[in-house]
Amino acid sequence: MRAARYYARNDIRIEDVAEPQLMPGSVAIDVAWCGICGTDLHEFLEGPIFIPPTGCPHPISGEDAPVVIGHEFSGTVTALGEGVADLEVGQSVVVEPYIIADDVDTGPGQDYQLSKDMNFIGLGGRGGGLAEKIVVQRRWVHPVGDIPLDQAALIEPLSVGHHAYVRSGARAGQTAVVGGAGPIGLLTAAVLKAEGLTVFVSELSEARKEMARTTGVADEVLDPRDGDVAERVRELTGGAGADVGFECSSVPVVLDMLLDAVRPGAVIVNVSIWGHKPEVDMPTLVLKEIDLRGTIGYSNDHPATIALVQSGKIDLAPFITGRISLDTLVSEGYDQLIHHNEEHVKIIVDPRA
Amino acid sequence: MRAARYYARNDIRIEDVAEPQLMPGSVAIDVAWCGICGTDLHEFLEGPIFIPPTGCPHPISGEDAPVVIGHEFSGTVTALGEGVADLEVGQSVVVEPYIIADDVDTGPGQDYQLSKDMNFIGLGGRGGGLAEKIVVQRRWVHPVGDIPLDQAALIEPLSVGHHAYVRSGARAGQTAVVGGAGPIGLLTAAVLKAEGLTVFVSELSEARKEMARTTGVADEVLDPRDGDVAERVRELTGGAGADVGFECSSVPVVLDMLLDAVRPGAVIVNVSIWGHKPEVDMPTLVLKEIDLRGTIGYSNDHPATIALVQSGKIDLAPFITGRISLDTLVSEGYDQLIHHNEEHVKIIVDPRA
Ligand SMILES: NC(=O)c1ccc[n+]([C@@H]2O[C@H](COP(=O)([O-])OP(=O)(O)OC[C@H]3O[C@@H](n4cnc5c(N)ncnc54)[C@H](O)[C@@H]3O)[C@@H](O)[C@H]2O)c1
Ligand SMILES: NC(=O)c1ccc[n+]([C@@H]2O[C@H](COP(=O)([O-])OP(=O)(O)OC[C@H]3O[C@@H](n4cnc5c(N)ncnc54)[C@H](O)[C@@H]3O)[C@@H](O)[C@H]2O)c1
Ligand SMILES: [Zn+2]
Ligand SMILES: [Zn+2]
Repeated sequence: MRAARYYARNDIRIEDVAEPQLMPGSVAIDVAWCGICGTDLHEFLEGPIFIPPTGCPHPISGEDAPVVIGHEFSGTVTALGEGVADLEVGQSVVVEPYIIADDVDTGPGQDYQLSKDMNFIGLGGRGGGLAEKIVVQRRWVHPVGDIPLDQAALIEPLSVGHHAYVRSGARAGQTAVVGGAGPIGLLTAAVLKAEGLTVFVSELSEARKEMARTTGVADEVLDPRDGDVAERVRELTGGAGADVGFECSSVPVVLDMLLDAVRPGAVIVNVSIWGHKPEVDMPTLVLKEIDLRGTIGYSNDHPATIALVQSGKIDLAPFITGRISLDTLVSEGYDQLIHHNEEHVKIIVDPRA
Repeated sequence: MRAARYYARNDIRIEDVAEPQLMPGSVAIDVAWCGICGTDLHEFLEGPIFIPPTGCPHPISGEDAPVVIGHEFSGTVTALGEGVADLEVGQSVVVEPYIIADDVDTGPGQDYQLSKDMNFIGLGGRGGGLAEKIVVQRRWVHPVGDIPLDQAALIEPLSVGHHAYVRSGARAGQTAVVGGAGPIGLLTAAVLKAEGLTVFVSELSEARKEMARTTGVADEVLDPRDGDVAERVRELTGGAGADVGFECSSVPVVLDMLLDAVRPGAVIVNVSIWGHKPEVDMPTLVLKEIDLRGTIGYSNDHPATIALVQSGKIDLAPFITGRISLDTLVSEGYDQLIHHNEEHVKIIVDPRA
């Protein structure tokens, strides 16, 4: 079958690889669509980061580069391994793309995303969504009902936003500020809006500000070039400041803005991945007794995330800004995102086209 | 009466001032002992910070420099203002030294320490503990029963430690790492130990390491010069890392050590006051989903703090490392702490001697 494999920095090849074999307890899936993520670009430009370099196999998957890539994907069940009785051939599904040690409890309430050597399908081995087929352990397969398969490819980053929302402890009726309206900021805002919060989004790019407005995920879109964002948030909240903030830019001034824009006693969830140690406005964190919380991936968020889309509370369609075939992954996909990231949200890839 | 008044940086004068007048709803107190705090030194060396400079009266107290200083004090009730019926003349008391606007709810569960323009008695006006007498609103007076008045002067910084403990959500049986064993770190460790945690303290100074050991507030005392503290904490916790961390040094490497030393999903409470924006290991905060929480002062912590001392769970006596008279405040008190801080914990002042 055709697959995109990561060999090394700047070396991704579209090639023929052996089809994965169905195993007991696993599910065979024909991939429909797979999104390209900022993480994929980091691996391409600066990696390997999550990807185990050639010669250094991942402790759980046992695999090293070249590995099939792509972790944001949807597809159709084609076969069920021995012992899998609660899914059906033909069902639309998405994959929660974890590689987690067998002895880790992945049940309800378990923070399995924090377990030792955690990695992702499509980065750390076990196949990926940028291939025609994949076989995945039953635990990580989630049916999506009648959600169209193109939109379903966005369930994975939407689950990141859902987990950030859960981490925040935010409740309906509260006010949130989201710093940065890339895919992660926009999808986090979508979850917050669906959960009944008032959402202010801060963003620089015209296309993304427009996206935040037209999709309705933001009640107000604020541009730092139009004046102090924290000041504007205080005005919009009757002087109080927002109840919760979400850092989705990995830009230090945005984190500082959030520390300023939230009310005393507020929670800020840091969703962004930092490549360095930023300077943080700790004096404000202390004097306002702010809780600054990390969030990584998701844990048992997929069912609730899927339900938000199924119920119509979130419409993922507008966030798809490009559709390409596997052969043009680098030339049309990566290149667009490297040079025109701020005009896109999600480019999805059809690995069978 | 004799009082220490702050005029400006490097200008504290011991002089005669008018006695404060008893008012309805307030309590007259003869001060017994008043501790010197790092905050007082900051005001002296780098201030005014909390103290309203001459010509810039504090919005709530209406006062500006010169102001009477001292916020860590105990004393004896000498008179009760009209309407105060639940205290008695002769009672030993401490003061929760807040200046808070009249319209703020200071009842149970209220975060009044976060209210607008909050300041402290002994910094922002309303008298101070470095004077023979003070009159304080009933709300801020806490009886201490038979706790000796010298020890009672340490209830205020101990309440800072108690509030940090409350902010952490830590429970008996858990493991804590405290970074820095100055007065705040030691007293925070004392609360944690009294509340049933296992406590590891990291500190550089020999005298303070010794204090952490002999008082029993630390189960293990770790020195960063003897090897990686986080590594040692992992060894001591069977590889897991500590459940909770407390930053009490305002040194960036200590905060980074705590981020490394705690387990995934842990809470770190930042107790220290930062004079700048430190670089923070945000990558670790995100990947381990750590909660980094600010804490300032106390809110409804005094009763529980006093109970810990009354019950004998905390012995404050060993933390008193000097006793001086008001006249030698600067020459014996401040000078000792400026030049030999790390050999001291708390120097207390008798304003009547
Ligand atoms: N925690 C997790 O599990 C997780 C998962 C996926 C991605 N991430 C991280 O989330 C972050 C966001 O991802 P993304 O794909 O949306 O990134 P992105 O770079 O596409 O989006 C960042 C946005 O921030 C905006 N921005 C930059 N400076 C700004 C400023 N001063 N004010 C307002 N906006 C500003 C940019 O215009 C951009 O639109 C990345 O760091 C990514 O690594 C985290
Ligand atoms: N949040 C609040 O309400 C509140 C209240 C009072 C004080 N504070 C703050 O708490 C902090 C501590 O106060 P303090 O009076 O105990 O200060 P301190 O300076 O006396 O104590 C700090 C201790 O940290 C130790 N230290 C320095 N570098 C270290 C390292 N690399 N590893 C281990 N230990 C190291 C020092 O040896 C010292 O003993 C200060 O920043 C103070 O302003 C906060
Ligand atoms: Zn992704
Ligand atoms: Zn103090």
